[in-house]
Amino acid sequence: MGEVGEEAILAAIFPLLPAGAATLLGPGDDAAVVAAPDARFVVSTDVLVEDRHFRRAWSTGYDVGWRAAVQNLADVAAMGATPTSLVVSLVVPSDLPVAFVTGLARGLAAACEPVGAAVVGGDLSGAEQVVVAVTVHGDLDGRDPVTRAGARPGDVVAHAGRRGWSAAGLALATAGRASCALPAAEQDPLTAAYLRPDPPLGAGVAAALAGATSMLDVSDGLLRDAGRVARASDVRIDLDLASFAADAAALVGAARDLRSGPVRALVDEWILTGGEDHGLLATFGPDAVLPEGFRVVGTVLASDGAPRVTVNGSAPAVAGTGWDHFGGSSR
Amino acid sequence: MGEVGEEAILAAIFPLLPAGAATLLGPGDDAAVVAAPDARFVVSTDVLVEDRHFRRAWSTGYDVGWRAAVQNLADVAAMGATPTSLVVSLVVPSDLPVAFVTGLARGLAAACEPVGAAVVGGDLSGAEQVVVAVTVHGDLDGRDPVTRAGARPGDVVAHAGRRGWSAAGLALATAGRASCALPAAEQDPLTAAYLRPDPPLGAGVAAALAGATSMLDVSDGLLRDAGRVARASDVRIDLDLASFAADAAALVGAARDLRSGPVRALVDEWILTGGEDHGLLATFGPDAVLPEGFRVVGTVLASDGAPRVTVNGSAPAVAGTGWDHFGGSSR
Repeated sequence: MGEVGEEAILAAIFPLLPAGAATLLGPGDDAAVVAAPDARFVVSTDVLVEDRHFRRAWSTGYDVGWRAAVQNLADVAAMGATPTSLVVSLVVPSDLPVAFVTGLARGLAAACEPVGAAVVGGDLSGAEQVVVAVTVHGDLDGRDPVTRAGARPGDVVAHAGRRGWSAAGLALATAGRASCALPAAEQDPLTAAYLRPDPPLGAGVAAALAGATSMLDVSDGLLRDAGRVARASDVRIDLDLASFAADAAALVGAARDLRSGPVRALVDEWILTGGEDHGLLATFGPDAVLPEGFRVVGTVLASDGAPRVTVNGSAPAVAGTGWDHFGGSSR
Repeated sequence: MGEVGEEAILAAIFPLLPAGAATLLGPGDDAAVVAAPDARFVVSTDVLVEDRHFRRAWSTGYDVGWRAAVQNLADVAAMGATPTSLVVSLVVPSDLPVAFVTGLARGLAAACEPVGAAVVGGDLSGAEQVVVAVTVHGDLDGRDPVTRAGARPGDVVAHAGRRGWSAAGLALATAGRASCALPAAEQDPLTAAYLRPDPPLGAGVAAALAGATSMLDVSDGLLRDAGRVARASDVRIDLDLASFAADAAALVGAARDLRSGPVRALVDEWILTGGEDHGLLATFGPDAVLPEGFRVVGTVLASDGAPRVTVNGSAPAVAGTGWDHFGGSSR
């Protein structure tokens, strides 16, 4: 990177980045101009830091770009909005191969194109570690945003996407048992889910249209994120662990690979506290027809103090409640 | 930082951050919602990296927050737009004092409040170095954006703000002659200009209303940034060095402090290649009435090949042309 220079690198990256229907003025000026037909826009920012959120030994540039985009796109989806555009601040060490950065641009593009989001701007600088800070924008198309604060007693709790796959993939990688070194198409599903989470982004708008009363992107673990909805809405959320049987079936092999003896506790921990799958947790009125991709995973109850989140009626028995981005895992 | 935890730190920061008239849903959900009455928004992102753009030995958290906001606000101003909102991705080492982060929030707030911009979201994570990635949004109020591409032969070139002050302050700091260690109110003007650049942000909208044909934020040095306008507009820009006499007068003392013998070349280098003052360089039709704060600094000529930028009719004699954010100074 250091030998190539900023402008040459940007010139190599820009052609790789997707344009979008909302882009009125793309990269290259002091700022971009993006259409906001709704006269409002949704905005969120999320950062990935090398050796904290990913390791270059496991993740390619493509993987990091994909993940940086998806974790941001999921935040827009969780408001019930349609993503329109991203900007990317990228800092990289001077000895980073240029191919990592062009791969990162390809990963961003691959995640953005299916949802119609453009990369409209960026900044590039040097540092000791790779840091990818993405800001994402979305359009609400006249709808109210779906916040965390609207869950009501009697609502059903529903989830779209995978639970625990990313955590299991990370556990495999940490144990040296993941297939990170293989080409993407040959990686096992849990490794792939960790490296390139692939949540059902379209389910966000579908949930809004179906009348979701609250919604969030499960990025820090189900218990922790369900707790955020419960606090913001002043309710209790009771989760039905059996509703994640399909995830448990997908995870049990990895658990057996990592632990001799009973593995149920480890599988449950991945499901309840694993982060980074970026599935959508939403609540719906009792008569709502759930959109495709959502399954009922619990019930909203009146608040009766702590605990805010219960599992099959009881305080959760797992060791931790999820990921602290600053202090690391709270486990 | 490491002992306090992400949520406690965010809880300490949020009350320090300014709200704004455009904020429809502020921090705390998956995404914020910002008004875009123009049905378009302007967006730009810029990053500050410790030991590349600032040193903690010289800059307080307040200084870094101020500068991170201002360099972004200037990009919106340079499009002729009014800033509405910022989001901030902050990564910090675990041994960073919490006071640095709360100071950073205060610096962001102090820079945003006068222009009515809100901080509507953020992300916080750990890393080896402090990295502050800001994304800024603005509203065009029905006007066309002022790009770099509209300068026409016969236009006047005008500049609002300081030239070379930040570079001189950096040179003083590098030589151990700056007053970084003093309270802000007691610092010399060049040190203060380096630590907390204070460009005339309101001049951007004023320039747009006065019919500016092109505009940019001079962040990488006058020669380099004028070259960007000249290339985008396919013109030549001839600068009149004497028009920066007031800046030269303010800089000559620092030059004498750093160099024995003639100092004119050093002063000219600061004026022509110094970055980070974030003044606005704009072009106007020959009959335009320049808005307050702008002074004529050159002329737009028909393109006749290289050089794109001349100084008093000749290719510039200074050693470098400005700052490469990735490779470092090109000097």
